Amino acid sequence: MPSDAYNAAVTAIKEQMQQANAGPPPDLATTRAGFEASYSSRPIPDGVSVTPVDAGGVSAEWVTPPEVEGNRTIIYLHGGGYVVGNLNTHRHVVSRLALGAKARLLNVDYRLAPENPYPAALDDALAAWQWHLANGGEAAYTAISGDSAGGGLTIALCMKLRDEGLEQPACAAPISPWTDLTFSGDSMTERAERDPMLSGADALHSMVMAYTQSVDATDPYISPVFGKFEDLPPMMIQVGTEEVLYDDSTRVVRGIESASGSVEFRPWQDMMHVWHLLAGVAPEAEEGIAELAAYISERT
Amino acid sequence: MPSDAYNAAVTAIKEQMQQANAGPPPDLATTRAGFEASYSSRPIPDGVSVTPVDAGGVSAEWVTPPEVEGNRTIIYLHGGGYVVGNLNTHRHVVSRLALGAKARLLNVDYRLAPENPYPAALDDALAAWQWHLANGGEAAYTAISGDSAGGGLTIALCMKLRDEGLEQPACAAPISPWTDLTFSGDSMTERAERDPMLSGADALHSMVMAYTQSVDATDPYISPVFGKFEDLPPMMIQVGTEEVLYDDSTRVVRGIESASGSVEFRPWQDMMHVWHLLAGVAPEAEEGIAELAAYISERT
Repeated sequence: MPSDAYNAAVTAIKEQMQQANAGPPPDLATTRAGFEASYSSRPIPDGVSVTPVDAGGVSAEWVTPPEVEGNRTIIYLHGGGYVVGNLNTHRHVVSRLALGAKARLLNVDYRLAPENPYPAALDDALAAWQWHLANGGEAAYTAISGDSAGGGLTIALCMKLRDEGLEQPACAAPISPWTDLTFSGDSMTERAERDPMLSGADALHSMVMAYTQSVDATDPYISPVFGKFEDLPPMMIQVGTEEVLYDDSTRVVRGIESASGSVEFRPWQDMMHVWHLLAGVAPEAEEGIAELAAYISERT
Repeated sequence: MPSDAYNAAVTAIKEQMQQANAGPPPDLATTRAGFEASYSSRPIPDGVSVTPVDAGGVSAEWVTPPEVEGNRTIIYLHGGGYVVGNLNTHRHVVSRLALGAKARLLNVDYRLAPENPYPAALDDALAAWQWHLANGGEAAYTAISGDSAGGGLTIALCMKLRDEGLEQPACAAPISPWTDLTFSGDSMTERAERDPMLSGADALHSMVMAYTQSVDATDPYISPVFGKFEDLPPMMIQVGTEEVLYDDSTRVVRGIESASGSVEFRPWQDMMHVWHLLAGVAPEAEEGIAELAAYISERT
Protein backbone atom coordinates (compact mmCIF):
# COMPACT_ATOMS: atom_id res chain seq x y z
CA MET A 1 0.00 0.00 0.00
CA PRO A 2 1.31 3.43 -0.86
CA SER A 3 1.94 5.75 2.07
CA ASP A 4 -0.57 8.44 2.97
CA ALA A 5 2.00 11.01 1.91
CA TYR A 6 2.30 9.35 -1.49
CA ASN A 7 -1.48 9.24 -1.93
CA ALA A 8 -1.79 12.89 -0.93
CA ALA A 9 0.89 13.86 -3.43
CA VAL A 10 -0.84 11.87 -6.17
CA THR A 11 -4.13 13.59 -5.41
CA ALA A 12 -2.43 16.96 -5.71
CA ILE A 13 -0.81 15.95 -9.00
CA LYS A 14 -4.15 14.72 -10.38
CA GLU A 15 -5.80 18.03 -9.48
CA GLN A 16 -2.96 19.95 -11.09
CA MET A 17 -3.24 17.84 -14.25
CA GLN A 18 -7.02 18.26 -14.40
CA GLN A 19 -6.64 21.98 -14.09
CA ALA A 20 -3.99 22.02 -16.82
CA ASN A 21 -6.13 19.90 -19.14
CA ALA A 22 -9.19 22.07 -18.63
CA GLY A 23 -7.68 24.97 -20.55
CA PRO A 24 -5.93 25.08 -23.89
CA PRO A 25 -2.52 23.36 -23.99
CA PRO A 26 0.09 25.75 -22.62
CA ASP A 27 2.91 26.93 -24.83
CA LEU A 28 6.40 25.56 -24.36
CA ALA A 29 7.74 28.35 -22.17
CA THR A 30 4.77 27.96 -19.83
CA THR A 31 5.15 24.17 -19.70
CA ARG A 32 8.84 24.51 -18.85
CA ALA A 33 8.17 27.15 -16.23
CA GLY A 34 5.39 25.03 -14.72
CA PHE A 35 7.62 21.98 -14.35
CA GLU A 36 10.35 24.11 -12.84
CA ALA A 37 7.91 25.77 -10.43
CA SER A 38 6.67 22.37 -9.26
CA TYR A 39 10.05 20.96 -8.30
CA SER A 40 12.89 23.48 -8.23
CA SER A 41 12.08 24.83 -4.78
CA ARG A 42 12.29 21.43 -3.06
CA PRO A 43 15.09 21.61 -0.50
CA ILE A 44 18.24 19.53 -0.88
CA PRO A 45 19.85 17.67 2.05
CA ASP A 46 22.19 19.61 4.34
CA GLY A 47 25.85 19.43 3.47
CA VAL A 48 25.45 18.70 -0.23
CA SER A 49 27.27 21.30 -2.32
CA VAL A 50 26.44 22.32 -5.86
CA THR A 51 29.04 23.74 -8.25
CA PRO A 52 28.34 24.72 -11.86
CA VAL A 53 30.80 23.27 -14.36
CA ASP A 54 31.36 23.33 -18.11
CA ALA A 55 31.55 19.62 -18.95
CA GLY A 56 33.26 19.73 -22.33
CA GLY A 57 30.96 22.38 -23.71
CA VAL A 58 27.90 20.98 -21.96
CA SER A 59 26.33 22.93 -19.12
CA ALA A 60 26.39 20.85 -15.93
CA GLU A 61 26.90 20.97 -12.18
CA TRP A 62 28.78 18.89 -9.64
CA VAL A 63 26.57 17.76 -6.79
CA THR A 64 28.86 16.69 -3.99
CA PRO A 65 27.83 15.08 -0.68
CA PRO A 66 29.97 15.48 2.46
CA GLU A 67 31.36 11.96 2.09
CA VAL A 68 32.57 10.55 -1.25
CA GLU A 69 33.95 7.03 -1.57
CA GLY A 70 37.17 7.17 -3.63
CA ASN A 71 36.57 8.24 -7.21
CA ARG A 72 32.93 7.11 -7.25
CA THR A 73 30.90 9.20 -9.68
CA ILE A 74 27.38 9.25 -11.08
CA ILE A 75 26.57 10.93 -14.38
CA TYR A 76 22.89 11.91 -14.22
CA LEU A 77 20.53 12.65 -17.13
CA HIS A 78 17.29 14.29 -15.99
CA GLY A 79 13.82 13.56 -17.36
CA GLY A 80 11.24 15.76 -19.05
CA GLY A 81 10.50 14.19 -22.43
CA TYR A 82 13.62 15.73 -24.01
CA VAL A 83 11.66 19.00 -24.00
CA VAL A 84 11.38 20.24 -20.41
CA GLY A 85 13.35 19.82 -17.19
CA ASN A 86 16.77 21.11 -16.22
CA LEU A 87 19.28 21.04 -13.39
CA ASN A 88 16.86 22.78 -11.03
CA THR A 89 13.96 20.38 -11.48
CA HIS A 90 15.93 17.30 -10.39
CA ARG A 91 18.41 18.66 -7.85
CA HIS A 92 16.32 17.45 -4.88
CA VAL A 93 16.44 13.92 -6.35
CA VAL A 94 20.08 13.75 -7.46
CA SER A 95 21.40 15.29 -4.25
CA ARG A 96 19.80 12.41 -2.30
CA LEU A 97 21.19 9.90 -4.78
CA ALA A 98 24.70 11.33 -4.42
CA LEU A 99 24.39 11.35 -0.63
CA GLY A 100 23.12 7.77 -0.49
CA ALA A 101 25.72 6.43 -2.91
CA LYS A 102 28.60 8.42 -1.41
CA ALA A 103 29.38 9.58 -4.93
CA ARG A 104 29.97 12.90 -6.54
CA LEU A 105 27.29 13.41 -9.17
CA LEU A 106 27.47 15.28 -12.48
CA ASN A 107 23.99 16.68 -13.15
CA VAL A 108 23.96 17.22 -16.93
CA ASP A 109 21.98 20.05 -18.54
CA TYR A 110 21.84 18.52 -22.03
CA ARG A 111 20.21 20.60 -24.77
CA LEU A 112 16.43 20.30 -25.17
CA ALA A 113 14.13 19.85 -28.16
CA PRO A 114 12.53 21.18 -30.27
CA GLU A 115 15.22 23.86 -30.45
CA ASN A 116 17.81 21.08 -30.37
CA PRO A 117 16.34 17.82 -31.69
CA TYR A 118 17.95 14.38 -31.71
CA PRO A 119 20.91 13.76 -31.59
CA ALA A 120 21.66 16.88 -29.47
CA ALA A 121 20.78 15.23 -26.14
CA LEU A 122 22.78 12.09 -26.94
CA ASP A 123 25.70 14.16 -28.24
CA ASP A 124 25.74 16.15 -25.01
CA ALA A 125 25.50 13.05 -22.83
CA LEU A 126 28.41 11.52 -24.74
CA ALA A 127 30.43 14.74 -24.53
CA ALA A 128 29.88 14.91 -20.76
CA TRP A 129 30.97 11.26 -20.43
CA GLN A 130 34.14 11.84 -22.44
CA TRP A 131 34.90 15.05 -20.58
CA HIS A 132 34.57 13.14 -17.31
CA LEU A 133 37.03 10.44 -18.42
CA ALA A 134 39.47 13.05 -19.69
CA ASN A 135 39.34 14.90 -16.36
CA GLY A 136 40.15 12.28 -13.78
CA GLY A 137 37.02 10.19 -14.04
CA GLU A 138 37.39 6.42 -14.24
CA ALA A 139 34.82 4.30 -16.05
CA ALA A 140 35.21 1.48 -13.50
CA TYR A 141 34.05 3.81 -10.71
CA THR A 142 31.35 5.63 -12.64
CA ALA A 143 27.64 4.90 -13.01
CA ILE A 144 25.21 6.49 -15.44
CA SER A 145 21.69 7.14 -14.24
CA GLY A 146 18.67 9.12 -15.35
CA ASP A 147 14.89 9.15 -15.27
CA SER A 148 12.21 8.98 -17.95
CA ALA A 149 13.66 10.49 -21.16
CA GLY A 150 16.95 10.66 -19.25
CA GLY A 151 16.58 6.95 -18.48
CA GLY A 152 16.11 6.13 -22.15
CA LEU A 153 19.07 8.37 -22.87
CA THR A 154 21.11 6.44 -20.29
CA ILE A 155 20.51 3.21 -22.21
CA ALA A 156 21.02 4.89 -25.59
CA LEU A 157 24.35 6.27 -24.37
CA CYS A 158 25.49 2.80 -23.27
CA MET A 159 24.56 1.44 -26.69
CA LYS A 160 26.44 4.28 -28.36
CA LEU A 161 29.55 3.70 -26.23
CA ARG A 162 29.42 0.00 -27.11
CA ASP A 163 28.91 0.67 -30.82
CA GLU A 164 31.78 3.16 -30.93
CA GLY A 165 34.10 0.88 -28.97
CA LEU A 166 34.41 3.41 -26.15
CA GLU A 167 34.75 2.71 -22.43
CA GLN A 168 31.50 1.82 -20.69
CA PRO A 169 30.42 2.76 -17.16
CA ALA A 170 30.63 0.24 -14.31
CA CYS A 171 26.85 0.12 -14.30
CA ALA A 172 23.73 1.95 -15.41
CA ALA A 173 20.63 2.67 -13.35
CA PRO A 174 17.69 4.04 -15.34
CA ILE A 175 14.52 5.10 -13.51
CA SER A 176 11.19 4.69 -15.36
CA PRO A 177 13.06 4.90 -18.67
CA TRP A 178 11.27 6.03 -21.82
CA THR A 179 12.67 3.55 -24.30
CA ASP A 180 9.98 3.44 -26.99
CA LEU A 181 9.05 6.68 -28.72
CA THR A 182 6.71 4.75 -31.04
CA PHE A 183 4.36 3.88 -28.13
CA SER A 184 4.18 0.21 -29.11
CA GLY A 185 4.13 -1.20 -25.55
CA ASP A 186 0.81 -2.59 -24.30
CA SER A 187 1.09 -0.65 -21.04
CA MET A 188 0.77 2.58 -23.03
CA THR A 189 -2.97 1.98 -23.39
CA GLU A 190 -3.60 -0.61 -20.66
CA ARG A 191 -2.32 1.64 -17.88
CA ALA A 192 -3.30 5.00 -19.35
CA GLU A 193 -5.86 5.64 -16.59
CA ARG A 194 -3.57 4.45 -13.81
CA ASP A 195 -0.53 6.71 -14.05
CA PRO A 196 -1.29 10.17 -12.65
CA MET A 197 2.05 11.60 -13.80
CA LEU A 198 1.90 10.46 -17.42
CA SER A 199 -1.44 9.52 -18.89
CA GLY A 200 -0.66 8.10 -22.30
CA ALA A 201 0.54 8.64 -25.82
CA ASP A 202 -1.25 11.96 -26.37
CA ALA A 203 0.76 13.65 -23.64
CA LEU A 204 3.97 12.40 -25.23
CA HIS A 205 3.12 13.01 -28.86
CA SER A 206 4.32 16.60 -29.03
CA MET A 207 7.54 15.55 -27.31
CA VAL A 208 8.20 12.83 -29.87
CA MET A 209 7.72 15.31 -32.69
CA ALA A 210 9.93 17.83 -30.94
CA TYR A 211 12.77 15.35 -30.36
CA THR A 212 12.69 13.09 -33.40
CA GLN A 213 11.49 15.58 -36.02
CA SER A 214 12.15 13.85 -39.35
CA VAL A 215 14.30 11.04 -37.90
CA ASP A 216 12.62 7.63 -37.62
CA ALA A 217 11.59 7.04 -33.99
CA THR A 218 12.58 3.38 -34.27
CA ASP A 219 16.25 4.42 -34.31
CA PRO A 220 17.72 2.53 -31.31
CA TYR A 221 19.48 5.66 -30.09
CA ILE A 222 16.00 7.22 -29.85
CA SER A 223 14.07 4.10 -28.83
CA PRO A 224 16.55 1.66 -27.26
CA VAL A 225 13.85 -1.01 -27.16
CA PHE A 226 14.61 -1.56 -30.86
CA GLY A 227 18.37 -1.88 -30.28
CA LYS A 228 20.74 -4.79 -29.70
CA PHE A 229 21.22 -5.74 -26.05
CA GLU A 230 24.57 -7.49 -26.22
CA ASP A 231 27.55 -6.12 -24.29
CA LEU A 232 25.83 -3.51 -22.19
CA PRO A 233 27.03 -2.67 -18.68
CA PRO A 234 25.24 -4.22 -15.69
CA MET A 235 21.97 -2.44 -15.19
CA MET A 236 19.24 -1.98 -12.59
CA ILE A 237 15.90 -0.73 -13.90
CA GLN A 238 13.24 0.70 -11.60
CA VAL A 239 9.69 1.26 -12.80
CA GLY A 240 6.31 1.77 -11.15
CA THR A 241 3.62 -0.82 -11.82
CA GLU A 242 1.11 1.94 -12.67
CA GLU A 243 3.20 3.37 -15.49
CA VAL A 244 2.19 3.67 -19.13
CA LEU A 245 5.92 3.16 -19.67
CA TYR A 246 5.93 -0.15 -17.77
CA ASP A 247 6.64 -2.15 -20.93
CA ASP A 248 9.38 0.30 -21.88
CA SER A 249 11.23 -1.35 -19.00
CA THR A 250 10.10 -4.97 -19.30
CA ARG A 251 11.16 -5.19 -22.93
CA VAL A 252 14.65 -3.87 -22.17
CA VAL A 253 14.91 -6.35 -19.28
CA ARG A 254 13.90 -9.25 -21.55
CA GLY A 255 16.36 -8.05 -24.20
CA ILE A 256 19.29 -7.92 -21.80
CA GLU A 257 18.36 -11.32 -20.31
CA SER A 258 18.17 -12.85 -23.80
CA ALA A 259 21.63 -11.48 -24.49
CA SER A 260 22.83 -13.05 -21.20
CA GLY A 261 23.58 -9.65 -19.74
CA SER A 262 23.29 -8.56 -16.12
CA VAL A 263 20.03 -6.80 -15.32
CA GLU A 264 18.09 -6.34 -12.10
CA PHE A 265 14.46 -5.49 -12.62
CA ARG A 266 12.77 -3.57 -9.84
CA PRO A 267 9.03 -3.06 -10.42
CA TRP A 268 7.66 -0.87 -7.63
CA GLN A 269 4.14 -1.81 -6.65
CA ASP A 270 1.52 0.96 -7.10
CA MET A 271 4.05 3.62 -8.02
CA MET A 272 3.60 6.19 -10.79
CA HIS A 273 6.11 7.44 -13.34
CA VAL A 274 9.30 8.74 -11.62
CA TRP A 275 7.86 8.79 -8.12
CA HIS A 276 11.39 9.75 -7.05
CA LEU A 277 10.37 13.34 -7.77
CA LEU A 278 8.41 13.15 -4.51
CA ALA A 279 11.71 13.06 -2.58
CA GLY A 280 11.20 14.98 0.64
CA VAL A 281 7.45 14.37 0.47
CA ALA A 282 6.78 10.61 0.28
CA PRO A 283 8.92 7.85 1.80
CA GLU A 284 8.66 5.69 -1.36
CA ALA A 285 10.74 8.28 -3.18
CA GLU A 286 13.52 8.09 -0.60
CA GLU A 287 13.34 4.29 -0.64
CA GLY A 288 13.57 4.15 -4.43
CA ILE A 289 16.58 6.45 -4.38
CA ALA A 290 18.18 4.37 -1.60
CA GLU A 291 17.79 1.19 -3.64
CA LEU A 292 19.40 2.92 -6.62
CA ALA A 293 22.24 4.25 -4.45
CA ALA A 294 22.91 0.81 -2.96
CA TYR A 295 23.09 -0.78 -6.41
CA ILE A 296 25.49 1.89 -7.64
CA SER A 297 27.75 1.78 -4.59
CA GLU A 298 28.10 -2.00 -4.85
CA ARG A 299 29.36 -1.71 -8.41
CA THR A 300 31.57 1.38 -8.29
CA MET B 1 -28.10 21.84 -46.05
CA PRO B 2 -24.82 20.29 -47.09
CA SER B 3 -24.91 18.20 -50.25
CA ASP B 4 -25.05 14.41 -50.05
CA ALA B 5 -21.53 14.32 -51.50
CA TYR B 6 -20.31 16.62 -48.71
CA ASN B 7 -21.96 14.51 -46.03
CA ALA B 8 -20.50 11.33 -47.50
CA ALA B 9 -17.03 12.89 -47.54
CA VAL B 10 -17.43 14.03 -43.93
CA THR B 11 -18.47 10.52 -42.89
CA ALA B 12 -15.37 9.11 -44.56
CA ILE B 13 -13.16 11.71 -42.85
CA LYS B 14 -14.73 10.93 -39.47
CA GLU B 15 -14.04 7.22 -39.96
CA GLN B 16 -10.46 7.93 -40.99
CA MET B 17 -9.97 10.15 -37.93
CA GLN B 18 -11.48 7.55 -35.59
CA GLN B 19 -9.17 4.92 -36.99
CA ALA B 20 -6.17 7.23 -36.62
CA ASN B 21 -7.11 8.10 -33.02
CA ALA B 22 -7.57 4.47 -32.03
CA GLY B 23 -3.84 3.73 -32.29
CA PRO B 24 -0.87 5.60 -30.90
CA PRO B 25 -0.19 8.99 -32.52
CA PRO B 26 1.74 8.44 -35.75
CA ASP B 27 5.22 9.86 -36.13
CA LEU B 28 5.79 12.90 -38.29
CA ALA B 29 6.82 11.07 -41.46
CA THR B 30 3.66 8.95 -41.25
CA THR B 31 1.46 11.98 -40.63
CA ARG B 32 2.94 13.77 -43.61
CA ALA B 33 2.62 10.70 -45.83
CA GLY B 34 -0.98 10.20 -44.68
CA PHE B 35 -1.98 13.75 -45.57
CA GLU B 36 -0.26 13.43 -48.92
CA ALA B 37 -1.92 10.07 -49.61
CA SER B 38 -5.34 11.54 -48.86
CA TYR B 39 -5.13 14.42 -51.32
CA SER B 40 -2.23 14.26 -53.75
CA SER B 41 -3.95 11.86 -56.15
CA ARG B 42 -6.98 14.10 -56.70
CA PRO B 43 -7.04 15.01 -60.41
CA ILE B 44 -6.54 18.58 -61.57
CA PRO B 45 -8.68 20.18 -64.29
CA ASP B 46 -7.76 19.58 -67.93
CA GLY B 47 -5.54 22.17 -69.51
CA VAL B 48 -3.90 23.43 -66.31
CA SER B 49 -0.12 23.13 -66.54
CA VAL B 50 2.28 22.77 -63.63
CA THR B 51 5.92 23.91 -63.82
CA PRO B 52 8.39 23.68 -60.94
CA VAL B 53 10.25 26.92 -60.23
CA ASP B 54 12.87 28.18 -57.79
CA ALA B 55 11.20 31.28 -56.36
CA GLY B 56 14.19 33.12 -54.95
CA GLY B 57 15.53 30.07 -53.15
CA VAL B 58 12.09 28.83 -52.22
CA SER B 59 10.75 25.66 -53.84
CA ALA B 60 7.54 26.43 -55.73
CA GLU B 61 5.56 25.70 -58.88
CA TRP B 62 3.65 27.76 -61.41
CA VAL B 63 0.12 26.51 -61.87
CA THR B 64 -1.14 27.99 -65.15
CA PRO B 65 -4.67 27.70 -66.54
CA PRO B 66 -5.30 27.90 -70.31
CA GLU B 67 -6.56 31.49 -70.02
CA VAL B 68 -4.76 34.13 -67.94
CA GLU B 69 -6.03 37.71 -67.67
CA GLY B 70 -3.08 40.06 -68.17
CA ASN B 71 -0.52 39.84 -65.39
CA ARG B 72 -2.99 38.48 -62.84
CA THR B 73 -1.21 36.30 -60.28
CA ILE B 74 -2.08 34.48 -57.06
CA ILE B 75 0.60 33.59 -54.51
CA TYR B 76 -0.73 30.57 -52.61
CA LEU B 77 0.36 29.31 -49.17
CA HIS B 78 -0.95 25.82 -48.42
CA GLY B 79 -2.26 24.59 -45.07
CA GLY B 80 -1.14 21.80 -42.74
CA GLY B 81 -0.37 23.40 -39.39
CA TYR B 82 3.07 24.59 -40.53
CA VAL B 83 4.13 20.94 -40.15
CA VAL B 84 2.53 18.92 -42.95
CA GLY B 85 1.26 19.58 -46.48
CA ASN B 86 3.12 20.46 -49.63
CA LEU B 87 2.58 21.33 -53.27
CA ASN B 88 0.99 17.94 -53.96
CA THR B 89 -1.63 18.08 -51.22
CA HIS B 90 -3.22 21.29 -52.49
CA ARG B 91 -2.72 21.13 -56.25
CA HIS B 92 -6.31 20.01 -56.85
CA VAL B 93 -7.50 23.10 -54.95
CA VAL B 94 -5.14 25.71 -56.35
CA SER B 95 -5.53 24.54 -59.95
CA ARG B 96 -9.28 25.23 -59.69
CA LEU B 97 -8.60 28.60 -58.08
CA ALA B 98 -6.21 29.56 -60.89
CA LEU B 99 -8.68 28.39 -63.53
CA GLY B 100 -11.59 30.25 -61.94
CA ALA B 101 -9.65 33.47 -61.42
CA LYS B 102 -7.92 33.36 -64.83
CA ALA B 103 -4.67 33.87 -62.97
CA ARG B 104 -1.35 32.15 -62.96
CA LEU B 105 -0.73 30.83 -59.48
CA LEU B 106 2.53 30.40 -57.58
CA ASN B 107 2.09 27.39 -55.28
CA VAL B 108 4.73 27.94 -52.59
CA ASP B 109 6.49 25.03 -50.86
CA TYR B 110 7.61 26.99 -47.80
CA ARG B 111 9.79 25.16 -45.26
CA LEU B 112 7.99 23.19 -42.56
CA ALA B 113 8.42 22.87 -38.79
CA PRO B 114 9.76 21.45 -36.55
CA GLU B 115 12.84 21.14 -38.77
CA ASN B 116 12.34 24.78 -39.73
CA PRO B 117 10.44 26.66 -37.02
CA TYR B 118 9.13 30.23 -37.15
CA PRO B 119 10.14 32.44 -38.91
CA ALA B 120 11.11 30.03 -41.73
CA ALA B 121 7.61 29.86 -43.26
CA LEU B 122 7.18 33.65 -43.11
CA ASP B 123 10.68 34.22 -44.48
CA ASP B 124 9.93 31.91 -47.40
CA ALA B 125 6.57 33.52 -48.11
CA LEU B 126 8.25 36.94 -48.09
CA ALA B 127 11.08 35.70 -50.31
CA ALA B 128 8.58 34.27 -52.82
CA TRP B 129 6.70 37.59 -52.83
CA GLN B 130 9.85 39.59 -53.43
CA TRP B 131 11.06 37.17 -56.10
CA HIS B 132 7.71 37.56 -57.85
CA LEU B 133 7.93 41.37 -57.88
CA ALA B 134 11.54 41.21 -59.09
CA ASN B 135 10.55 38.90 -61.95
CA GLY B 136 7.74 40.67 -63.74
CA GLY B 137 5.08 40.43 -61.08
CA GLU B 138 3.08 43.53 -60.20
CA ALA B 139 1.63 44.01 -56.75
CA ALA B 140 -1.48 45.69 -58.18
CA TYR B 141 -2.35 42.54 -60.12
CA THR B 142 -1.38 40.01 -57.48
CA ALA B 143 -3.42 38.39 -54.70
CA ILE B 144 -2.16 36.33 -51.79
CA SER B 145 -4.24 33.40 -50.66
CA GLY B 146 -3.82 30.36 -48.47
CA ASP B 147 -5.70 28.00 -46.19
CA SER B 148 -5.49 27.20 -42.46
CA ALA B 149 -1.88 27.79 -41.37
CA GLY B 150 -1.33 29.18 -44.88
CA GLY B 151 -4.28 31.53 -44.29
CA GLY B 152 -2.73 32.77 -41.06
CA LEU B 153 0.54 33.11 -42.91
CA THR B 154 -1.23 35.14 -45.63
CA ILE B 155 -2.34 37.68 -43.02
CA ALA B 156 1.04 37.60 -41.24
CA LEU B 157 2.78 38.29 -44.54
CA CYS B 158 0.52 41.30 -45.22
CA MET B 159 1.32 42.64 -41.74
CA LYS B 160 5.02 42.07 -42.36
CA LEU B 161 4.90 43.87 -45.74
CA ARG B 162 3.09 46.78 -44.08
CA ASP B 163 5.54 46.93 -41.16
CA GLU B 164 8.56 46.84 -43.49
CA GLY B 165 7.10 49.47 -45.81
CA LEU B 166 7.06 47.03 -48.75
CA GLU B 167 4.52 46.82 -51.55
CA GLN B 168 1.30 45.03 -50.61
CA PRO B 169 -0.83 42.78 -52.80
CA ALA B 170 -4.02 44.05 -54.45
CA CYS B 171 -5.95 41.82 -52.08
CA ALA B 172 -5.69 38.84 -49.76
CA ALA B 173 -8.04 35.87 -49.55
CA PRO B 174 -7.45 33.57 -46.58
CA ILE B 175 -9.48 30.37 -46.26
CA SER B 176 -10.24 29.12 -42.71
CA PRO B 177 -7.14 30.95 -41.45
CA TRP B 178 -5.39 29.82 -38.26
CA THR B 179 -4.70 33.18 -36.69
CA ASP B 180 -4.44 32.31 -32.99
CA LEU B 181 -1.83 29.76 -31.93
CA THR B 182 -2.74 30.37 -28.28
CA PHE B 183 -6.24 28.84 -28.79
CA SER B 184 -7.96 31.73 -27.02
CA GLY B 185 -11.04 31.83 -29.28
CA ASP B 186 -14.32 30.53 -27.81
CA SER B 187 -14.97 28.39 -30.89
CA MET B 188 -11.93 26.28 -30.02
CA THR B 189 -13.92 24.55 -27.29
CA GLU B 190 -17.51 25.41 -28.29
CA ARG B 191 -17.21 23.79 -31.72
CA ALA B 192 -14.72 21.03 -30.86
CA GLU B 193 -17.31 18.30 -31.48
CA ARG B 194 -18.62 19.87 -34.67
CA ASP B 195 -15.58 20.09 -36.94
CA PRO B 196 -14.69 16.68 -38.36
CA MET B 197 -11.46 17.95 -39.93
CA LEU B 198 -10.02 19.62 -36.85
CA SER B 199 -11.32 18.68 -33.45
CA GLY B 200 -9.70 21.08 -31.02
CA ALA B 201 -6.62 22.32 -29.31
CA ASP B 202 -5.10 18.90 -28.63
CA ALA B 203 -4.75 18.17 -32.33
CA LEU B 204 -2.98 21.49 -32.80
CA HIS B 205 -0.73 21.44 -29.73
CA SER B 206 2.16 19.53 -31.25
CA MET B 207 2.02 21.85 -34.27
CA VAL B 208 2.25 24.93 -32.08
CA MET B 209 5.29 23.53 -30.30
CA ALA B 210 6.85 22.54 -33.61
CA TYR B 211 6.34 25.95 -35.18
CA THR B 212 6.78 28.41 -32.32
CA GLN B 213 9.35 26.50 -30.22
CA SER B 214 10.66 29.03 -27.74
CA VAL B 215 9.09 32.07 -29.43
CA ASP B 216 6.00 33.52 -27.77
CA ALA B 217 2.89 32.39 -29.68
CA THR B 218 1.31 35.80 -29.17
CA ASP B 219 3.78 37.29 -31.66
CA PRO B 220 1.48 38.83 -34.31
CA TYR B 221 3.51 37.25 -37.13
CA ILE B 222 2.61 33.88 -35.54
CA SER B 223 -0.88 34.76 -34.31
CA PRO B 224 -2.12 37.72 -36.41
CA VAL B 225 -5.16 38.04 -34.16
CA PHE B 226 -2.85 39.86 -31.72
CA GLY B 227 -1.56 42.25 -34.41
CA LYS B 228 -2.51 45.71 -35.59
CA PHE B 229 -5.12 45.79 -38.36
CA GLU B 230 -4.42 49.21 -39.88
CA ASP B 231 -3.32 49.51 -43.51
CA LEU B 232 -3.85 45.95 -44.64
CA PRO B 233 -4.90 45.15 -48.22
CA PRO B 234 -8.58 44.45 -48.96
CA MET B 235 -9.40 40.99 -47.74
CA MET B 236 -12.06 38.31 -48.11
CA ILE B 237 -12.14 35.68 -45.38
CA GLN B 238 -14.00 32.39 -45.78
CA VAL B 239 -14.66 30.11 -42.82
CA GLY B 240 -17.04 27.22 -42.09
CA THR B 241 -19.55 27.71 -39.29
CA GLU B 242 -18.55 24.33 -37.78
CA GLU B 243 -14.91 25.25 -37.33
CA VAL B 244 -12.97 25.35 -34.07
CA LEU B 245 -11.11 28.15 -35.86
CA TYR B 246 -14.33 30.15 -36.45
CA ASP B 247 -13.25 32.88 -34.03
CA ASP B 248 -9.82 32.97 -35.63
CA SER B 249 -11.69 34.59 -38.53
CA THR B 250 -14.27 36.68 -36.69
CA ARG B 251 -11.64 38.43 -34.59
CA VAL B 252 -9.60 39.38 -37.64
CA VAL B 253 -12.77 40.65 -39.34
CA ARG B 254 -13.63 42.79 -36.30
CA GLY B 255 -10.06 44.06 -36.16
CA ILE B 256 -10.03 45.17 -39.79
CA GLU B 257 -13.48 46.74 -39.47
CA SER B 258 -12.38 48.66 -36.37
CA ALA B 259 -9.40 49.94 -38.37
CA SER B 260 -11.79 50.99 -41.16
CA GLY B 261 -10.23 48.52 -43.56
CA SER B 262 -11.95 46.61 -46.34
CA VAL B 263 -12.96 43.09 -45.36
CA GLU B 264 -15.61 40.75 -46.68
CA PHE B 265 -16.56 38.03 -44.23
CA ARG B 266 -17.93 34.83 -45.74
CA PRO B 267 -19.10 32.33 -43.11
CA TRP B 268 -20.16 29.12 -44.90
CA GLN B 269 -23.08 27.42 -43.22
CA ASP B 270 -22.40 23.89 -41.95
CA MET B 271 -18.93 23.67 -43.48
CA MET B 272 -15.87 22.18 -41.77
CA HIS B 273 -12.29 23.43 -41.77
CA VAL B 274 -10.97 23.99 -45.33
CA TRP B 275 -13.82 22.15 -47.06
CA HIS B 276 -12.15 23.30 -50.29
CA LEU B 277 -9.99 20.18 -50.02
CA LEU B 278 -13.09 18.29 -51.19
CA ALA B 279 -12.72 19.87 -54.64
CA GLY B 280 -13.78 17.29 -57.22
CA VAL B 281 -15.87 15.51 -54.61
CA ALA B 282 -18.40 17.95 -53.09
CA PRO B 283 -19.98 20.94 -54.88
CA GLU B 284 -19.49 23.21 -51.82
CA ALA B 285 -15.75 23.01 -52.41
CA GLU B 286 -16.08 24.18 -56.00
CA GLU B 287 -18.49 26.93 -54.91
CA GLY B 288 -16.12 28.14 -52.20
CA ILE B 289 -13.24 28.25 -54.66
CA ALA B 290 -15.45 30.05 -57.20
CA GLU B 291 -16.34 32.75 -54.64
CA LEU B 292 -12.66 33.20 -53.87
CA ALA B 293 -11.77 33.36 -57.57
CA ALA B 294 -14.46 35.96 -58.23
CA TYR B 295 -13.22 38.15 -55.39
CA ILE B 296 -9.64 37.95 -56.62
CA SER B 297 -10.48 38.63 -60.28
CA GLU B 298 -12.48 41.74 -59.35
CA ARG B 299 -9.47 43.20 -57.52
CA THR B 300 -6.54 42.23 -59.77
